[in-house]
Amino acid sequence: MGHSYQETYRIPFEMVDVNGNIKLPDFLAKLLDVSGTHSNALGRSDQYVRETYGYVWIVTDYEFTIEQMPRLNQELLIRTEAVSYNKLICHRCFEVLDHSDRVLMTVEAYFALMDLTSRRVVAVPEELIGPYLSEKVKKISRNASYKTLDHPETKSYAIRFFDIDHNGHVNNSKYFEWIYESLDYHFLLNHVPKHIYLKYAREVSPGGTIDSQYELDEMVSHHQIVSDGQISTQARIEWEVRS
Amino acid sequence: MGHSYQETYRIPFEMVDVNGNIKLPDFLAKLLDVSGTHSNALGRSDQYVRETYGYVWIVTDYEFTIEQMPRLNQELLIRTEAVSYNKLICHRCFEVLDHSDRVLMTVEAYFALMDLTSRRVVAVPEELIGPYLSEKVKKISRNASYKTLDHPETKSYAIRFFDIDHNGHVNNSKYFEWIYESLDYHFLLNHVPKHIYLKYAREVSPGGTIDSQYELDEMVSHHQIVSDGQISTQARIEWEVRS
Repeated sequence: MGHSYQETYRIPFEMVDVNGNIKLPDFLAKLLDVSGTHSNALGRSDQYVRETYGYVWIVTDYEFTIEQMPRLNQELLIRTEAVSYNKLICHRCFEVLDHSDRVLMTVEAYFALMDLTSRRVVAVPEELIGPYLSEKVKKISRNASYKTLDHPETKSYAIRFFDIDHNGHVNNSKYFEWIYESLDYHFLLNHVPKHIYLKYAREVSPGGTIDSQYELDEMVSHHQIVSDGQISTQARIEWEVRS
Repeated sequence: MGHSYQETYRIPFEMVDVNGNIKLPDFLAKLLDVSGTHSNALGRSDQYVRETYGYVWIVTDYEFTIEQMPRLNQELLIRTEAVSYNKLICHRCFEVLDHSDRVLMTVEAYFALMDLTSRRVVAVPEELIGPYLSEKVKKISRNASYKTLDHPETKSYAIRFFDIDHNGHVNNSKYFEWIYESLDYHFLLNHVPKHIYLKYAREVSPGGTIDSQYELDEMVSHHQIVSDGQISTQARIEWEVRS
């Protein structure tokens, strides 16, 4: 087992939607904050990685499995473990539990390291990954498959000043927000996600606009974010009617 | 002196902009969360106010005075006091301090109570306000004056699903975001606010779009948010060059 870390978290008013359910894009940013605290505790802060290697972590894929949407004022336990890694990819898992240790949600997250000078993905240094006690594996499998969209609905979004994070990039929670928000208001009001697959292929540049496109196929929505004619992010979301 | 309450807060990655400075609209939502915890502790939660009276708190005005923008990972003390009230308005102050008790920012906030049935502002019941130990005063003065915009720059924003809070309203931090984001990216990159006045006149309805308009007059920006041909919010922001 890899090194793990946990924190309690009460869901504040600004973190929930009109139904009182957690805003998943904002909660994703919170999860990454928890993994940042974990890394700091192991002497592997983002600053250390940047200053020692000239590298930065980038997210490649997420997979959410949602048993029950966390709610306003709920007290959560967020537990994260650095599960495994291979030459290029590191796999981290988040578990979100309620006060009786019931798992409400799991999030599998996959990261790579980018060299800030060459802007290329680089091999994971053993010295960097050591303290996480992750299992070294040959292959890290992700099950997701994504549909090419033939006749999508499209919404355009201007990239905002506050979409850019302290690394100078569009924060990856923003792509998730554009994907989510592309759907119809009444659909979002009356459905909750059960399973979400998200894949980042190419980052969009600050300034300009992106197109958030989707096709809804019964209770599954297929998404892509397109910028400068190229697919930046793909997603598949399995929904159910809100009870 | 009114009853006061304080909390510590470390500024997480998702709460800062590309410069590492706090995102003020998001931080405003955090401040309101702190005042909510204060009210809960006094037995005057939003739920109590709704169930006992059928009322909800609405914000009428804010005034920010910023000595220094809080930064990524900074440990803050957020202190709030229910200062005073008159027949219709309650005045609450927030002080944001660093670890050496230096005041980085103060926010004066003004609230009224709205009857959820009539949608009208109502008198503040003595029984509701009692535990706050606020001073009862004749007049609550706010110094702000706002300019009518003759030839504004305009950006339009579609109201998003996640802009609507659990009360079913566009959250007031969103108006602030639309105001902020209307300014040019490079202006925001190179300036920081010193003084902000914000006045809410009329709420916008979920769905549809709003126009965020501004005129920049040297180092002062004048703002209005227009929806259905009516002014919803006005603001004045005094800026300085980022050092």
